[in-house]
Amino acid sequence: MDGAFYQRHLFVCLNQRENGERACNNSGIAEEVFHAAKQHAKALGIHGEKQVRVNRCGCLGRCDEGPIAVVYPDAVWYTYVDADDIREIVESHLRDGVPVERLRI
Amino acid sequence: MDGAFYQRHLFVCLNQRENGERACNNSGIAEEVFHAAKQHAKALGIHGEKQVRVNRCGCLGRCDEGPIAVVYPDAVWYTYVDADDIREIVESHLRDGVPVERLRI
Repeated sequence: MDGAFYQRHLFVCLNQRENGERACNNSGIAEEVFHAAKQHAKALGIHGEKQVRVNRCGCLGRCDEGPIAVVYPDAVWYTYVDADDIREIVESHLRDGVPVERLRI
Repeated sequence: MDGAFYQRHLFVCLNQRENGERACNNSGIAEEVFHAAKQHAKALGIHGEKQVRVNRCGCLGRCDEGPIAVVYPDAVWYTYVDADDIREIVESHLRDGVPVERLRI
């Protein structure tokens, strides 16, 4: 990963649907979790170029397993229950490089 | 990449800003280019699980070099001028695994 713009890049799906279909942010939790992740990475001093980035994104195509987040370039997929879960992902995976096995899908 | 949910995953930044700062979709081109990429991947029959995915996302943090797109897990970063550029990325990189050197940043 030498030379990578970001060492690890977390994408949190914030997709909403009005038609009753399942979507990661229908309950609003994904928005809250996205901001918690970004704030935590900033508080740890690891958010930025040559470090890590926390990104919002649209539908990742795994709605039935959601709410969904994915870490690249590792291609490790997660679901979460609350902001504590995402902060664990930020510390263990983004900062320390250790995927959080209990949250993987 | 055996077992990867997507072999290659293209994220197109659709960020807009109202305050005059540079952002990938201020001109509206990123929205058009995102849809062109997704349609092209679907037309080629490569959009889906175990194949490739075209995704919208928020700010990728490289605004000055934008408009921006990135392909993971390769971590290859692109800029583009129009929908033809993104269709070339879809065919050459997403389908054939060959990055488009002239569009890399």
